[in-house]
Amino acid sequence: MSQQRHGSTPGSTGAVPAFPDLPEATIARLPEYLRALHYLSESGSDTISSEGLATAAGVNSAKLRKDLSHLGSYGTRGVGYDVALLIDQIEYILGLDQRRAVCLVGVGNLGHALAGYDGFASRGFRIVALFDADPARIGEKINGLTVRHIDELGRVAAEESLAIGVIATPASAAQAVADDLVAAGVTSILNFAPCVLTVPANVDVRKVDLAIELQILSFHEHRKASLTALPGGRSAAGNQEAVGS
Amino acid sequence: MSQQRHGSTPGSTGAVPAFPDLPEATIARLPEYLRALHYLSESGSDTISSEGLATAAGVNSAKLRKDLSHLGSYGTRGVGYDVALLIDQIEYILGLDQRRAVCLVGVGNLGHALAGYDGFASRGFRIVALFDADPARIGEKINGLTVRHIDELGRVAAEESLAIGVIATPASAAQAVADDLVAAGVTSILNFAPCVLTVPANVDVRKVDLAIELQILSFHEHRKASLTALPGGRSAAGNQEAVGS
Repeated sequence: MSQQRHGSTPGSTGAVPAFPDLPEATIARLPEYLRALHYLSESGSDTISSEGLATAAGVNSAKLRKDLSHLGSYGTRGVGYDVALLIDQIEYILGLDQRRAVCLVGVGNLGHALAGYDGFASRGFRIVALFDADPARIGEKINGLTVRHIDELGRVAAEESLAIGVIATPASAAQAVADDLVAAGVTSILNFAPCVLTVPANVDVRKVDLAIELQILSFHEHRKASLTALPGGRSAAGNQEAVGS
Repeated sequence: MSQQRHGSTPGSTGAVPAFPDLPEATIARLPEYLRALHYLSESGSDTISSEGLATAAGVNSAKLRKDLSHLGSYGTRGVGYDVALLIDQIEYILGLDQRRAVCLVGVGNLGHALAGYDGFASRGFRIVALFDADPARIGEKINGLTVRHIDELGRVAAEESLAIGVIATPASAAQAVADDLVAAGVTSILNFAPCVLTVPANVDVRKVDLAIELQILSFHEHRKASLTALPGGRSAAGNQEAVGS
């Protein structure tokens, strides 16, 4: 797959290195800005103030300005940011102009949902292959793709230039799948299995654990309840314990 | 060895306040430690060194010791942490001893998968209600629960002491659902819709956006490719390089 897609790229014009040393937190916010910018663009906005964009993305505007300054984007005083230009800059940095090929391993409940999720295509990705180890699932069609046996991963990875592997298997199978993905040359993994994966240093792993997200919310519920708790008794109104009793 | 669970609480014994002022990053790691501790407990380990627990949880051991010191847990020199005690302490802090009631709104592809996910029950939560606005879905049974109309939310929230609402609707419906949840007294929301929600200050929102996770990985793919790119040409094979950030 070619590196350059449009002759020149927003990041290679000289003002900013192609890969500025971005803080992890900034990287994580760029997709939020991008989503907000696409929404603004579709609504007919050509420019947007840092305050407007910050509100649309759900962050504070000082943080947003600092994040975008890492990309060499400072906006224009009294005008704001050029929406189309900023979209190009962020998409370039995120590498979304390349429409990376994604494979999904494990087509149980969650895998089915992910395979059927329309949001990927509109946001820079193509799911090109589905895999499972269960013979009963091989050959099943989901959203136009046929589920293949995991043994075909190496061949498909070479054919399709797979960049990202999504693991939606049970925890017990996840490490073996990760090993297969790495052996097939995949260097980024999104792991939905509730376990820690061991991978070489050149492989990036991100993890989504739904129960962990709920447990973090549970902490906040507990904290809120403790703030309103009455000594020796039930908690005061304003949290679920009180609402339910 | 076992912590007292009834009458008094681990956090109220004097050494540590019931709600130590935990950094957000520490809160986010506690569920990881808990998962690793349950695994160790099931494997028959009574104690674990900080290094062993750190490896099982996928963090470095200095960070782990610091995190646990916030809970007043320092382990015993030469012995390590008491696994059962630490499970109790973390579950108490996370409020998991209360098995919080969760409702899910939106039973499309993703909602179906979430409703069928067995991981919740084993990790401190009960999904007690499913809602949708689509008349065609009302009455459908998923994992033993019947899908109800969203108009019933207020009544069900009162009956079931709903603590956490999960939004798995399209983005266009999510804010209205969040408003309904807040009106029903729910104070924690897990949002899968790709949009920013506006909620009162006492409501905690966590967001899971699958495309955003992929976009962050795409950034790392792009960065790795740029490190191995040959001038004016294709990238070197396989994105071999890159640790960094």
